[in-house]
Amino acid sequence: MHALIEELYPICRSITGNGVRETLRLIGRRIPLDIQEVPTGTRAFDWQIPQEWNIRDAYIKDADGRKVVDFRNSNLHVVGYSVPVHEQMPLEELKKHLFTLPEHPDWIPYRTSYYSETWGFCLSQRQLDELGDGVYEVVMDTELKDGHLTYGEFLVPGRSDEEVLFFTHICHPSLCNDNLSGIALVTRMAQELEGLDLRYTYRFVFAPATIGSITWLSRNEPVLSRIRHGLVLSNLGDSGKLTYKRSRHGIAEIDRVVTYVLQQAGREHAVLDFSPWGYDERQFGSPGINLPVGRLTRSPNGEYPEYHTSADNLDLVRPEYLAESLSTCLQTIKVLENNGRYLNRSPKGEPQLGRRGLYRKMGGYQDVSRQQLALLWVLSLSTGEPTLLDIAERSGIDFETVRAAAQDLVECELLEPCERVA
Amino acid sequence: MHALIEELYPICRSITGNGVRETLRLIGRRIPLDIQEVPTGTRAFDWQIPQEWNIRDAYIKDADGRKVVDFRNSNLHVVGYSVPVHEQMPLEELKKHLFTLPEHPDWIPYRTSYYSETWGFCLSQRQLDELGDGVYEVVMDTELKDGHLTYGEFLVPGRSDEEVLFFTHICHPSLCNDNLSGIALVTRMAQELEGLDLRYTYRFVFAPATIGSITWLSRNEPVLSRIRHGLVLSNLGDSGKLTYKRSRHGIAEIDRVVTYVLQQAGREHAVLDFSPWGYDERQFGSPGINLPVGRLTRSPNGEYPEYHTSADNLDLVRPEYLAESLSTCLQTIKVLENNGRYLNRSPKGEPQLGRRGLYRKMGGYQDVSRQQLALLWVLSLSTGEPTLLDIAERSGIDFETVRAAAQDLVECELLEPCERVA
Amino acid sequence: MHALIEELYPICRSITGNGVRETLRLIGRRIPLDIQEVPTGTRAFDWQIPQEWNIRDAYIKDADGRKVVDFRNSNLHVVGYSVPVHEQMPLEELKKHLFTLPEHPDWIPYRTSYYSETWGFCLSQRQLDELGDGVYEVVMDTELKDGHLTYGEFLVPGRSDEEVLFFTHICHPSLCNDNLSGIALVTRMAQELEGLDLRYTYRFVFAPATIGSITWLSRNEPVLSRIRHGLVLSNLGDSGKLTYKRSRHGIAEIDRVVTYVLQQAGREHAVLDFSPWGYDERQFGSPGINLPVGRLTRSPNGEYPEYHTSADNLDLVRPEYLAESLSTCLQTIKVLENNGRYLNRSPKGEPQLGRRGLYRKMGGYQDVSRQQLALLWVLSLSTGEPTLLDIAERSGIDFETVRAAAQDLVECELLEPCERVA
Repeated sequence: MHALIEELYPICRSITGNGVRETLRLIGRRIPLDIQEVPTGTRAFDWQIPQEWNIRDAYIKDADGRKVVDFRNSNLHVVGYSVPVHEQMPLEELKKHLFTLPEHPDWIPYRTSYYSETWGFCLSQRQLDELGDGVYEVVMDTELKDGHLTYGEFLVPGRSDEEVLFFTHICHPSLCNDNLSGIALVTRMAQELEGLDLRYTYRFVFAPATIGSITWLSRNEPVLSRIRHGLVLSNLGDSGKLTYKRSRHGIAEIDRVVTYVLQQAGREHAVLDFSPWGYDERQFGSPGINLPVGRLTRSPNGEYPEYHTSADNLDLVRPEYLAESLSTCLQTIKVLENNGRYLNRSPKGEPQLGRRGLYRKMGGYQDVSRQQLALLWVLSLSTGEPTLLDIAERSGIDFETVRAAAQDLVECELLEPCERVA
Repeated sequence: MHALIEELYPICRSITGNGVRETLRLIGRRIPLDIQEVPTGTRAFDWQIPQEWNIRDAYIKDADGRKVVDFRNSNLHVVGYSVPVHEQMPLEELKKHLFTLPEHPDWIPYRTSYYSETWGFCLSQRQLDELGDGVYEVVMDTELKDGHLTYGEFLVPGRSDEEVLFFTHICHPSLCNDNLSGIALVTRMAQELEGLDLRYTYRFVFAPATIGSITWLSRNEPVLSRIRHGLVLSNLGDSGKLTYKRSRHGIAEIDRVVTYVLQQAGREHAVLDFSPWGYDERQFGSPGINLPVGRLTRSPNGEYPEYHTSADNLDLVRPEYLAESLSTCLQTIKVLENNGRYLNRSPKGEPQLGRRGLYRKMGGYQDVSRQQLALLWVLSLSTGEPTLLDIAERSGIDFETVRAAAQDLVECELLEPCERVA
Repeated sequence: MHALIEELYPICRSITGNGVRETLRLIGRRIPLDIQEVPTGTRAFDWQIPQEWNIRDAYIKDADGRKVVDFRNSNLHVVGYSVPVHEQMPLEELKKHLFTLPEHPDWIPYRTSYYSETWGFCLSQRQLDELGDGVYEVVMDTELKDGHLTYGEFLVPGRSDEEVLFFTHICHPSLCNDNLSGIALVTRMAQELEGLDLRYTYRFVFAPATIGSITWLSRNEPVLSRIRHGLVLSNLGDSGKLTYKRSRHGIAEIDRVVTYVLQQAGREHAVLDFSPWGYDERQFGSPGINLPVGRLTRSPNGEYPEYHTSADNLDLVRPEYLAESLSTCLQTIKVLENNGRYLNRSPKGEPQLGRRGLYRKMGGYQDVSRQQLALLWVLSLSTGEPTLLDIAERSGIDFETVRAAAQDLVECELLEPCERVA
């Protein structure tokens, strides 16, 4: 995953433009992406696709002709969606278009202005402090014109057309945790699932934040009723603890499964309630969409100092954190794939497990093994409503042991799977 | 408020009689009261209006002709509803009719005997101790005969005929906290609301405790279905912490609003469950009436030593406590007036707030302001069911900010008010 | 109760056979038991009645002809349901059939093998250590052939045919707490109830564990719909704290009543959730039976070192613990008998209790008595749904005072009993 992050790091992405296309092309080397181009002006619920933005170059030269701010050093120097400029202006005038982070004097902030025509440069406070009075040449060699918004998706078909959705945003320029980490993790997860025999169909969407998820939703309304579970994935490579934000439902299966997986892992983690602020879970959880889509991050957006600054770089994201995040996602998929409802076919009294070879033959002992308890719990609770995860949580026995017990009981015809409640 | 208390303090009130009439007349100088006279013998649910009781004088003279207990010194000296007496009797005999508080030897207790014909005097333990043996002359110059029970009410009309009820009892003689404080506060609240443009119609009832509220309820059954919220108000001037007792419902809107207002004030307070013991909330919360009427006091009845004694005097009640109690009531009214349900008219994805001037134009910042969060929360939760108070509580944003956000969203047609659920 | 335990202690019981018959005969001297004999091979849900097992003698002799293990010393020496054996064998071979408790070298374990044909001896580790090499004579003079499973029951009729069930298992040999304590307590409880005027019909079942309860259930399906409450009783004489295990329902009336009685007693106790492991509550709480039957024990099965060993003897069980257990059961019955729903016939406002002699005549006091509060609570909550136990719990007033208040109110026609919800 870290290798893909390094590959994507230099590209200047925004919510539209060639940086997004190049990013999708590189992901497409690993998984066969379906790329969609949506024209400027297309309606997407309350929004419409903005003009496409591209940038060739941008810099500020001082009176001596030295580039004091240069896009080629960092694409964060340019406020996203800046309109073209080529002007001379005194420092006083220029300063209205300069953005810094005084509390972190060496870092460049990240700013955008997608829906309000303006231009600006971001730079470190130290750079700003060194600028003398005098006249500066400002070049913003950008292009803002009708074009397209670009996103990609990939479908891994399962036995059922019920879907699990993973969404990650691809609109940020050289910021590693937010969100090359999410892009790399979703790409890797898709590679892991491709070709497996799966219960669910898995959909992986790579799109710009906000306008991208809104566009995808508006163009996929027939798909939405098939989405059973979903996760927005971002900020997954930093050293912060894993943090799950519940879907709008709050107690959807995805909420319970991710929470369970995090608890079972036994490491520090956080589980937050839904709120309408954050990443694209806001759109999936809007009242008219209301899908069971949670969000998994490590440090959430806005809650670490490097967030949306040049310090969110290749050093912030580390392979071991990416690996732990991936493992959490794969465990979640494993539980989703195996979580089901069953019906005890011999519900009056306990069935005689001993004659079916499921129970030790001699009695009187003081204890009973975890495997045997799991058989009893599955039989006791399998009335068609509780899932295996319910049984695992109620009994305190791990999901895998409960799942194995259910399988043994199905094999000796004491249990039958229920059709999923539609 | 304290001035009205001083004015009403000397009057000898009971559940009927001229003391009540005089009290209502003085309140009527401030707000235009509608006075009702209900004849003795009138049925009121399980009760009937008792005979009217009035008193001209009462005293006990010792053998030397000195008045050792004198109604003119304190109307608490007379057990309420004492029947007429003019007799000579030895101390031994007299003592059967004397009541003291040995644990507070300087205080006169307050006793009544509305529904059992008897007579008695209350006096301080110190007075009792000074009585020598010998024969005493007892004069109880009272009158108990067919008459009326008197109460008053005042209606401030609003845009809707749905009502908010405030009830306070007026049957106690010279006791300040219980309940001249309630009388003064309700009078002042009525003055504050009169003439305002209000959503609800406000009803203020001044009536005797128990028989008064029962009588009012029995004569106003058609009104009851219009009462949406209510409070019984009493004991509001002492130094104890504000104490809210929930309505029988327990989670009615009035219960949630008063609790919210007390929490937001940030001062020590208490919130109690409903119980069938206390003041007139017992009647409003009886199973066949079952109105969402809570009770606001400072120290509840029976929970401070001065309660129902001569020590509940003008010193116990202080203007700053009355003012805080009034402020709590007015804040409660403010939330009730503005609490409503709304419907997000653009529920699929977030609407684009930026182009409506509701959102800052430049993105990428690490935080989001309280005002902007309030917009997002109102949009997210306005599915027609949650109220603005629900949204304030869920989001942790203060009610006023949430209300302002709802107003902004209504103005740009992203939100519409729902009709109140009947 | 301890006397009956002493009488039953020497008998060698199992899930079938003459030991069970003798046990039921001795119980039958105290209460008129109805004895049922169910033939080998009879179907009972997923099970069938096994062959009947009886034993005449069993021992192991060493080469010198000395009995080194002798059934006549302790019936625990024989693995229950051992098949007949008469063989000579070296120690090596014999050891495969010997069971000890190395961590308690003086205790004999208790083992059974009902459904797998084998044989074995249990002995203390110390006995085992003393066995020298050499050839041993093994005699297991048992009989395993078609016969019957035997159980007994006793019905104490009440005014209603709705039943309260008490079940205790009778299949363990010389083990006192598990379960001569349960047998003695149920016998004594039946004696206490016999002849009383009772609301419920009480059924007392003495049967083997597991196969016995399953057999009883399978032969009494028409009875099951009449069972309103039930308890499995066992392990009731040791010094551990009283422990209630909830029925599968979890909030059934029996669960609430036993919990209430334990709380009111004010002694340390435990209340556990239902689980499908334990004693016969497993069968009553199986998903296809699902009766409101909890379990009362002191130390639960498997949670004390003497459990299922020869140390569960006459010293482990003490009269004072048996008495406390009995008292808990009798208190439970008292609450069940008196717990009902009532309807306030004067629900608008409080009825006037004073004129009915239910209330003190003089007013103004600072407090109100527990008896008077109970009247107000019963009137307030008697809307037909809450039971007297609900009222006791909500008000914090003890059940007996609440019950007496309800009775007073019924007598003056302010309250009427509701028909039980079917």
